[in-house]
Amino acid sequence: MDKKRIKIGITHGDINGIGYEVILKTLADDRLTEFCTLILYGSQKIAQYHQKAMELPAINFKIISKPEEADAGKINLINCVGDNLKIEFGHSTPEAGLAAYQALEAATGDLKREAIHTLLTAPINKHNIQSNDFHFPGHTEYLEKVFDDGGKQQSIMIMLSESLRVALVTTHIPLGEVKTLISRESIVAKLSLFNTSLIRDFGIIKPRIAVLAINPHAGDNGVSGSEEETIIIPAIADAEKSGIMAFGPYPADGFFSAQSFHEFDGILAMYHDQGLIPFKLLASETGVNYTGGLPVIRTSPAHGTAYDIAGRNLASESSFRNALYASIDIYRKRTSYREMTANPLRKHYFDKSGDNVKLDLMVEDTNV
Amino acid sequence: MDKKRIKIGITHGDINGIGYEVILKTLADDRLTEFCTLILYGSQKIAQYHQKAMELPAINFKIISKPEEADAGKINLINCVGDNLKIEFGHSTPEAGLAAYQALEAATGDLKREAIHTLLTAPINKHNIQSNDFHFPGHTEYLEKVFDDGGKQQSIMIMLSESLRVALVTTHIPLGEVKTLISRESIVAKLSLFNTSLIRDFGIIKPRIAVLAINPHAGDNGVSGSEEETIIIPAIADAEKSGIMAFGPYPADGFFSAQSFHEFDGILAMYHDQGLIPFKLLASETGVNYTGGLPVIRTSPAHGTAYDIAGRNLASESSFRNALYASIDIYRKRTSYREMTANPLRKHYFDKSGDNVKLDLMVEDTNV
Repeated sequence: MDKKRIKIGITHGDINGIGYEVILKTLADDRLTEFCTLILYGSQKIAQYHQKAMELPAINFKIISKPEEADAGKINLINCVGDNLKIEFGHSTPEAGLAAYQALEAATGDLKREAIHTLLTAPINKHNIQSNDFHFPGHTEYLEKVFDDGGKQQSIMIMLSESLRVALVTTHIPLGEVKTLISRESIVAKLSLFNTSLIRDFGIIKPRIAVLAINPHAGDNGVSGSEEETIIIPAIADAEKSGIMAFGPYPADGFFSAQSFHEFDGILAMYHDQGLIPFKLLASETGVNYTGGLPVIRTSPAHGTAYDIAGRNLASESSFRNALYASIDIYRKRTSYREMTANPLRKHYFDKSGDNVKLDLMVEDTNV
Repeated sequence: MDKKRIKIGITHGDINGIGYEVILKTLADDRLTEFCTLILYGSQKIAQYHQKAMELPAINFKIISKPEEADAGKINLINCVGDNLKIEFGHSTPEAGLAAYQALEAATGDLKREAIHTLLTAPINKHNIQSNDFHFPGHTEYLEKVFDDGGKQQSIMIMLSESLRVALVTTHIPLGEVKTLISRESIVAKLSLFNTSLIRDFGIIKPRIAVLAINPHAGDNGVSGSEEETIIIPAIADAEKSGIMAFGPYPADGFFSAQSFHEFDGILAMYHDQGLIPFKLLASETGVNYTGGLPVIRTSPAHGTAYDIAGRNLASESSFRNALYASIDIYRKRTSYREMTANPLRKHYFDKSGDNVKLDLMVEDTNV
């Protein structure tokens, strides 16, 4: 496989949402084929249906049966689903769920045998995709299972934009359960995953990570909560001991309004809305969702199926396009990192003397 | 008391924070005295100390002993504290706590006997102010007690900016306790207070209120929480029955990023950071904190004592100045509302016929 040219697998997601719309709008720019090979896991018929319904520019797909047949200069398509699927814009249907799963399964298989390099997923509907084969809250958990590392596999949800990288300790759980899942161990584990991803996937040699407080005013010395003292500060200390540059905990409201995020390479939020409210406000339509910590690279747009505007040519493809670019950037950074660290020189230790020893040029150097 | 000209009492707050700095910077604009009478509850000596330390413009205070002596054209000052207080910028001291309380007590007394119309409070330190006389989490709870309405008194924290009014169901409590305090009753009670305040204090005849969800993605049909279904939606229905135009629940991250807040007169957030993160990001330094629901009008800046920058002439007075303007606006709106609703005409009911009755001009009008 050509190491220089990245092969990106794109899954079509839920066929009744805005997935095809943002895919087609993104792929309409044929300059993309100059630097990456694109393979859509979906259906030519469904793509054409969406294209005609919204009068989008037509794409001349090259139909292939496996990634090895992909033509670098074309948009390649692997038909993964049955031929007579019904599209119902804005509706959750069982066949849409099955189609989403079939594309994901095919792409994941190819990713596992390294026939494609990265995975870019259009949004699925978490309800209709459930089956005997797929019983996960979302893409992330499915990929954790497929790329299971003997039960050790863990991942971290990272939101990316031009100026921000926001990761979450807890994700899609009820607010009332956040407290029970925030522990010294869980924060240290996420800090470690985040730190590794910032180094390996974003090329930051020594990342600076800001940790947000969980309570208003960071607990205000115990007046509005104690987890900062009992959990978060000890977790930051643990992380520091293992060489991670973590700071905080910062009260979340003041942290963002003071634009303090510019001083950090990453921000660790304790729960979904704490990270996503400011991220979406600051990144607007351009944000990207990246699953850090996996052996493979998977990105996706920050939005969902958006049934309310499906089929109406109202969706912006910015987030999806940025997810494609992020996928390429991360793949390149990770490749360089692997090359740089593949054959490390053995470290040579020698006595450098203390700072208080002055170099005396009159003394003969006995080591020469 | 002159009904046209508003008398505003200003308390100096914590003398080691940025309170005096923002007060002096605001009052330096003498155009203020053209439309309101200003009375500072504090200390001339301390004001001068801050003024000199930061080389702020000097203010020629008129020293008075009670609001009735106030000179409309001057900045009036009532000395409320001992003469030999030590200022320690950025430090929490017991004497600063006592001084903050003495000013607040004096101003509140004058507010109660209607010698001043509104109260504008500089930030206090919630730790050093505690004593036998003051054992409250903050200004709001103290005022609730002073203006106690037989135990019924309730208030609501509302953050104001040019484009936003964000109110909170729960305020300065640990995140882990939010769930236990969110109930159908508590949401309806806050919606009612918010609605009344929007009508009475902001002159909005029929306010439209957006209610935020508590869980990520508004619970995602039960996948990430159930309070939306079991608590918030029924609470909105209850509020609607009593004539309140409440909508939602909206997922908080998407609500703000989609700029949906422009379509509403008020937004009700479930907990502190959910409301304050987006508010502070959008309103930046200009936000104002207003305590709705009280019989009296109290505003304050959205910031705290800011010990970290105290005495360094780095604080922006925007928030404090806007709190002063908000105080005037609310007072005027509330006065008009009281006048408009003081002697309502009795409603006359008469039969207007149905829409299906056509006017027949050939029939003689027997009523003439």
